[in-house]
Amino acid sequence: MPIVAMTSMASSNNINLVQCHYSQKGYIYTPKNSIFKASLLASGSRNAKILGQTFIVKANVGSFDKGVETVNGKKVNGVHLGDKSGIGSQEYSYHEPDDRGVLLGRFVEKRYVYRQTFAIRSYEIGPDKTATMETLMNLLQETALNHVTSAGLAGNGFGATHEMSLRKLIWVVTRIHVQVEKYSSWGDVVEIDTWVNAAGKNGMRRDYIIRDYVSQKIITRATSTWVIMNRETRRLSKIPDEVRNEVTPFYLDRDAIATENIDHEKIKKLTDETAVRIRPGIAPSWSDMDANQHINNVKYIGWILESVPLEILEKYNMGSITLEYRRECRQSDMLDSLTSVKKRLHEENNNNSTTSDRNTRCTTDKECTHLLRMQDDKSDIVRARTVWTLKH
Amino acid sequence: MPIVAMTSMASSNNINLVQCHYSQKGYIYTPKNSIFKASLLASGSRNAKILGQTFIVKANVGSFDKGVETVNGKKVNGVHLGDKSGIGSQEYSYHEPDDRGVLLGRFVEKRYVYRQTFAIRSYEIGPDKTATMETLMNLLQETALNHVTSAGLAGNGFGATHEMSLRKLIWVVTRIHVQVEKYSSWGDVVEIDTWVNAAGKNGMRRDYIIRDYVSQKIITRATSTWVIMNRETRRLSKIPDEVRNEVTPFYLDRDAIATENIDHEKIKKLTDETAVRIRPGIAPSWSDMDANQHINNVKYIGWILESVPLEILEKYNMGSITLEYRRECRQSDMLDSLTSVKKRLHEENNNNSTTSDRNTRCTTDKECTHLLRMQDDKSDIVRARTVWTLKH
Repeated sequence: MPIVAMTSMASSNNINLVQCHYSQKGYIYTPKNSIFKASLLASGSRNAKILGQTFIVKANVGSFDKGVETVNGKKVNGVHLGDKSGIGSQEYSYHEPDDRGVLLGRFVEKRYVYRQTFAIRSYEIGPDKTATMETLMNLLQETALNHVTSAGLAGNGFGATHEMSLRKLIWVVTRIHVQVEKYSSWGDVVEIDTWVNAAGKNGMRRDYIIRDYVSQKIITRATSTWVIMNRETRRLSKIPDEVRNEVTPFYLDRDAIATENIDHEKIKKLTDETAVRIRPGIAPSWSDMDANQHINNVKYIGWILESVPLEILEKYNMGSITLEYRRECRQSDMLDSLTSVKKRLHEENNNNSTTSDRNTRCTTDKECTHLLRMQDDKSDIVRARTVWTLKH
Repeated sequence: MPIVAMTSMASSNNINLVQCHYSQKGYIYTPKNSIFKASLLASGSRNAKILGQTFIVKANVGSFDKGVETVNGKKVNGVHLGDKSGIGSQEYSYHEPDDRGVLLGRFVEKRYVYRQTFAIRSYEIGPDKTATMETLMNLLQETALNHVTSAGLAGNGFGATHEMSLRKLIWVVTRIHVQVEKYSSWGDVVEIDTWVNAAGKNGMRRDYIIRDYVSQKIITRATSTWVIMNRETRRLSKIPDEVRNEVTPFYLDRDAIATENIDHEKIKKLTDETAVRIRPGIAPSWSDMDANQHINNVKYIGWILESVPLEILEKYNMGSITLEYRRECRQSDMLDSLTSVKKRLHEENNNNSTTSDRNTRCTTDKECTHLLRMQDDKSDIVRARTVWTLKH
């Protein structure tokens, strides 16, 4: 394969892409000052017969920071490059500008922040014609996986790095917290940014923000915690030094949600007595399994919703969800979904007061606690908390 | 709004887009001769403060055929334009190239063929790591809906035209036939073309082809038949003249699948006796409902698969599916899924023979017949036939 300079997007079918961004520095932080941004995409192919014009990409390969890059002698700033060091010059065949650049995402802040845009599709919206929470979680997952692939880290597993694959290790999510300010409609385009950071000694934190593409307003924030598991023994593992060395260069100390606004609270385990609604006997189907032969994390949300009272589903918007993944389930398992509902207490810090008293008042918001458990031994699969606000 | 020249993509949130293609004529038919194609995208916005550079688009507005168009005095061929006639010149504010052009599709053959590209996402692939039939059908539906919207035909319903919306009419699908040659993998980009034609006196036919974006090979072909229904009485309707006048200008006499290769055969109704496997008591969930408050057509596929023997799901690829939609179901209904399996007879026309005899031989292919029925009165919801070929 002729192309070495590539981190900006996933490669597939042995066809790699090089993406050269001409972008004003600081765009990400100050989109309002962004005057002009153009993208040039070139795809290489082994079949020289279908290719026309050739051109030269000269790049300071290996420099994430900047360097001076040229395309046919023209300076191009901000090219994101792979891990091969040194100044290289290489001839590329030019085919045609490629939809794949837009479709597969790219790095926007050096190697730290990965961005992918999505149009919300007709089948990704719910009965109220806006994107569902499942859709948002699917898009977050897709962006995260493309981030890992584009960083050149992907081993043979979904999201696992090379060093992890060598050791039969996989990432598993333990907790996700998503806060939605506005749900998008069919045809709306959203822009998802994601980045990673350390979480304690043996965890990784992955944060996300979703912006509305047109208004550039942040409409969703999310944070998630991941640990490493041996895919054969299914036991948790420390992060091996080799894996740490792979991932720490990508760590960015930035919070999508301020620490004090994250739902850190323990989620109580519901029982037959404390639940107001139980939907027993949920059977995962063949089409719920993902490429790892496991039930995909996102599928649990639909099952959680099955025990939520219809009145809440119809009249309220889900403002936030916190999921605690406690055990895996398989396609052959039968599950129960349990939900309890209470009025949401709204705490207001009285900052003007010198005392520590808080005004606690009731809102129209509802807070639900959920449990997905195995039907046979009643062991936990997922615990969750959702907050619902009345639709206007 | 400053922008009038636009048919190439859906507009959302009152922000329109103009898309100018620089493309060699005949590209669509002869992709191998396509040497160079570049896209220029410009988005308009009401907020002049966030915009920089302005430029002039001069266009032969209203010409689907070609005309000569210029951007800042530079000729651009093949601009797809709206329905306002005459030569126009208009000043546009230039923001930044817009991902939405790629994300929402465009017309590629005058007003007849609509094309949208999609990257297959991680959660759209099944246990064998390729796109599922449900994914393909979802993408076909999305392309069809964007086709209607981009044609300027969309009323207030999903896929209904203005004149249909005025009369409370909706399109309902009666039959879909999909033939898959190759299933795509995660990250693969597919290009879907769709167009419509008459089907008898009161039906519409919608055809689709899916190409692999890189190889430009056709990997899936599909055809579907649609009739008009009153959304309140749920009774079928003739196509009113006003609706016919809206849609016939878009009709294209071209077949995605040659007539002799389409599965026209009647699908037998399965019974408890003729089925080899029955999965009773399937309960549609809240998340199976679409924006029309109905179960989406595509959801039925997952339920059909629930009665397919595991051995077939694991060892075979679904080569084709034919779905006959016979009755609607609602979220409160309970369904049974039934499947029967037989060896597929492979008919070979012996063209060298002067007699009309046919060689019929057994292959390793399996042919399944399916029924989704109401659990209570056993009435048909969907009948289906699938053909399965052994994986390599």
